Amino acid sequence: MSTLTVPNQVPSVSEDCEQLRKAFADLLKALDKELSNDFERVVLLWTLDPAERDAFLANEATKRWTSSNQVLMEIACTRSSNQLLQARQAYHACYKKSLEEDVAHHTTGDFRKLLLPLVTSYRYEGDEVNMTLAKSEAKILHEKISKKAYTDEDLIRILATRSKAQINATLNHYKNEFGNDINKDLKTDPKDEYLALLRATVKCLIRPERYFEKVLRLAINRQGTDEGALTRVVTTRAEIDMKVIKEEYQKRNSVPLDRAIVKDTTGEYEKILLALIGHGDA
Amino acid sequence: MSTLTVPNQVPSVSEDCEQLRKAFADLLKALDKELSNDFERVVLLWTLDPAERDAFLANEATKRWTSSNQVLMEIACTRSSNQLLQARQAYHACYKKSLEEDVAHHTTGDFRKLLLPLVTSYRYEGDEVNMTLAKSEAKILHEKISKKAYTDEDLIRILATRSKAQINATLNHYKNEFGNDINKDLKTDPKDEYLALLRATVKCLIRPERYFEKVLRLAINRQGTDEGALTRVVTTRAEIDMKVIKEEYQKRNSVPLDRAIVKDTTGEYEKILLALIGHGDA
Repeated sequence: MSTLTVPNQVPSVSEDCEQLRKAFADLLKALDKELSNDFERVVLLWTLDPAERDAFLANEATKRWTSSNQVLMEIACTRSSNQLLQARQAYHACYKKSLEEDVAHHTTGDFRKLLLPLVTSYRYEGDEVNMTLAKSEAKILHEKISKKAYTDEDLIRILATRSKAQINATLNHYKNEFGNDINKDLKTDPKDEYLALLRATVKCLIRPERYFEKVLRLAINRQGTDEGALTRVVTTRAEIDMKVIKEEYQKRNSVPLDRAIVKDTTGEYEKILLALIGHGDA
Repeated sequence: MSTLTVPNQVPSVSEDCEQLRKAFADLLKALDKELSNDFERVVLLWTLDPAERDAFLANEATKRWTSSNQVLMEIACTRSSNQLLQARQAYHACYKKSLEEDVAHHTTGDFRKLLLPLVTSYRYEGDEVNMTLAKSEAKILHEKISKKAYTDEDLIRILATRSKAQINATLNHYKNEFGNDINKDLKTDPKDEYLALLRATVKCLIRPERYFEKVLRLAINRQGTDEGALTRVVTTRAEIDMKVIKEEYQKRNSVPLDRAIVKDTTGEYEKILLALIGHGDA
């Protein structure tokens, strides 16, 4: 049976033109709305207080596809313990549910195994480091990674529960003892999305400014800027560590972040981004 | 080579007696200390503020054997979300580590799988119930339990992340639809410690007063009172729900709790327990 049919009454050329005009008008309207949305989204995110903003971003992420898992991990690993907690409290207030409930419900398999302990963590934040533990846990990590047991529960336990200072000591020992950065050993299959999330987790925990530099770099250096990522990083880091992120960006790309933004964005959206990253302060 | 040797100078009978006397004296001293410790322990626990007390009990539990897993679960499931959170904060302050770090490090296998999400939960506490979700999750629980998949991650996810009101709705639907209380279906092997912990988890989440009644009953009705459990329940529930627990106890045992305590304990320990449960108020 044919799926292509000719109407009983063939329309006139002028009727065709009118229909095309209407269709294009609607398309332009949608496009226009889409364009102004970038600006509106920055304003919206910037207006929210940090805990509400994280709750909003996390909630959005739980409704999207695998790539949004990175947003959940980013919120879980780059905020302080109390900031993450306040985001969880804001989540209750805004969505009448717990964050972990939505994360657990909307993720599966390996991703859930990693994300659930990350978003529910309340890490100790002191500087104290137990070197004996660092050595024994570096060994555990190396054993698991050598066996490609990337979802091993001890590996996840170490990354999800230890303090950032302790993880840093463990990963320093890992490098000293076994020769490679852990993230190099976690790059056996560059296309594996779980491994990519695991590497990003490590980076967020010990070098957040490098993680954010990379997110910005990938958002800007591509066919069609990824405004979602650009807006997220700028609005969430503006008052935290944007200065260090800008320095990292300049070092890694040999071009200042503000110039890269000017090249890739326009209008009000460009202006507000530049204001937020402290254009002119650099 | 023999491990039993006779001293070069064989001691006289009077020397032997003196040594035995000293040894017994030390033993009695230790025993006496042990006995008075019951009282001291109530005073210690009662003196701490609730968050510190929970941190103390949880820390102690992470250092002990499997049976202490119940204490961790009890703290995780019978406190309000904010009380559990304050216990985690107190844990940082007291032990320079996170609670989940110690729980994850000191448990293994199925127990870790269940306990870690429980102690890190921050449940939504509103009354709203999603009946569609209750039905679909009751079905999931029934499927998993029918297959004896008691450590299934969806089963644990539901118990560890949903609000208590939602879990209650789910388990009501479970009973209506499938005929049994979920805990009856979880009693296939009464000796299985993991299943016992799972049943206790369900009870703590939806009928905490019945859970505590049972802990008290088992602590009192045995050869040699379990002072650890008795002290824990009395000191942690005195200001919360001891009145309902006493009512449950009377209903289930046909004897008031204070009379059972008088029968099983003595001295200062007895007096302080009676004062804490509100002797005479009943």
